[in-house]
Amino acid sequence: MQASYPENLRLEVERYLERMRFSEEDLTAGLEQAMRYSLLAGGKRIRPVLALATARAVGIEPREVLPLAGAIELIHTYSLIHDDLPAMDDDDLRRGAPTCHVKFGEDVAILAGDGLYAEAFRHLLREQRSAPELVLRAAAELATATGVNGMVGGQYADVSASTPPGPASLRRLHELKTGRLIGASVLCVLLLGGIADESVTAPLRRFACELGVLFQIVDDILDVTGTDAALGKPRGSDERHGKRTYVSEFGIDRARELAAESHAMATEALAQADGPTDELEQIADFIYMRTS
Amino acid sequence: MQASYPENLRLEVERYLERMRFSEEDLTAGLEQAMRYSLLAGGKRIRPVLALATARAVGIEPREVLPLAGAIELIHTYSLIHDDLPAMDDDDLRRGAPTCHVKFGEDVAILAGDGLYAEAFRHLLREQRSAPELVLRAAAELATATGVNGMVGGQYADVSASTPPGPASLRRLHELKTGRLIGASVLCVLLLGGIADESVTAPLRRFACELGVLFQIVDDILDVTGTDAALGKPRGSDERHGKRTYVSEFGIDRARELAAESHAMATEALAQADGPTDELEQIADFIYMRTS
Repeated sequence: MQASYPENLRLEVERYLERMRFSEEDLTAGLEQAMRYSLLAGGKRIRPVLALATARAVGIEPREVLPLAGAIELIHTYSLIHDDLPAMDDDDLRRGAPTCHVKFGEDVAILAGDGLYAEAFRHLLREQRSAPELVLRAAAELATATGVNGMVGGQYADVSASTPPGPASLRRLHELKTGRLIGASVLCVLLLGGIADESVTAPLRRFACELGVLFQIVDDILDVTGTDAALGKPRGSDERHGKRTYVSEFGIDRARELAAESHAMATEALAQADGPTDELEQIADFIYMRTS
Repeated sequence: MQASYPENLRLEVERYLERMRFSEEDLTAGLEQAMRYSLLAGGKRIRPVLALATARAVGIEPREVLPLAGAIELIHTYSLIHDDLPAMDDDDLRRGAPTCHVKFGEDVAILAGDGLYAEAFRHLLREQRSAPELVLRAAAELATATGVNGMVGGQYADVSASTPPGPASLRRLHELKTGRLIGASVLCVLLLGGIADESVTAPLRRFACELGVLFQIVDDILDVTGTDAALGKPRGSDERHGKRTYVSEFGIDRARELAAESHAMATEALAQADGPTDELEQIADFIYMRTS
């Protein structure tokens, strides 16, 4: 198993995000400040790096999908800001720093999230240099993956008392909440590339889907076994919030087995794909082995 | 001055909104319920009706822009839900009924707003039958009009303590907060129609811009002079929230003069436009004369 992470791609993403500007006037400069505070708080940039690595795997120059990759990270940041709100998970710390609403107030944090989501679409629709019908398809996939049948719907299922118990709904909840955006980081690149050949797309789709599951299982395990310092927030937050997780549902040992199975399935899917998939493999390994 | 409103277009919009569905599974049905609760709470549907009337004025069959019109009303509804939140304006009533967070809880209301915005783009990008490059341009305009340099930025300026006093920043704040989405209801139709001829677009752009100003001045006047029953919420909410308005800035008499001037400018702009603009005129008259 590889221990490295595609740092070159992460740096490319980081530089791209740092260059992004949103506000065109003084009146809204404070909003941009809150948005950039959360956007530039660091992290591995898994989703945009995944998009760039997918591009490389299917023969597209990674830089060409940077507008998409940037949009995806804006959306991920928006979801973190809204998830952290007092009415949601009520988290004060994220990556060791005060969360957006602690730093800027709840009203500004809600609007920073709203603004990031709008600017994500604005950016993708205006900056992505691909044929219009392909940009349109990728943007529609991104909207779907982050809407009621994706990220926002999954977050609803997570906070809703009416979500039924049991492993099936737990898995589905996480497919929506985290899996769909991770999946979209791969799918949108295929759409932008106009790549429709099933023999190319099917393995990568399977990989993307499994990667989302793997990410969540490891996330749940880390909330129990991680250190506060590595996590950047107090561990055990899932249990305190009464969240159902892979650990609460299956126990820590079975959760570890499930993570190993999921990682194996992701790797097998990649083995079916042509092209240079070494960076995608590094990402899968990193997600499996990460400690924060 | 005409007293009527394009009811036929409003009914067309209403029927279209009623048919919209968002959730594809039981897990997220409750989220759809909250979204539809706010979406179908009635109202004059000024923005989508404006889009349909603009279509007619430039020779496009109004029905053809229904996906755009629907998306705009989803976005308007999302903005109302988030504006009403306890951390924002903290309003309990909207159109005489409990606001979304009072009815479904603050967490669900935040997500209902987030979901409506995502579904607006999903809907527009998937359902609007126009050339891809035109849909792309219209969607980019809608994202811009509702992002940091539009609606969300204006709402930020409204809640921010750092917004400077004086009529210039007041006007700019409202241009962003309400004017840009009203303007986009006209502009996006021109973009979808691929209409670039300045002699056609310039008068309609001027009309759209002035309509946004008119809407806000009248809104501020009604908050002082309207009845609770007509407004569907207690009047005087702006003053209680310490909001700067056209009335607080200029006094009620001057605000009424400004409304009359703004209405006259909107009507004059329309007079420069070709095509059947009678429905657009009705909308301007309605916004000027409305009591709620």
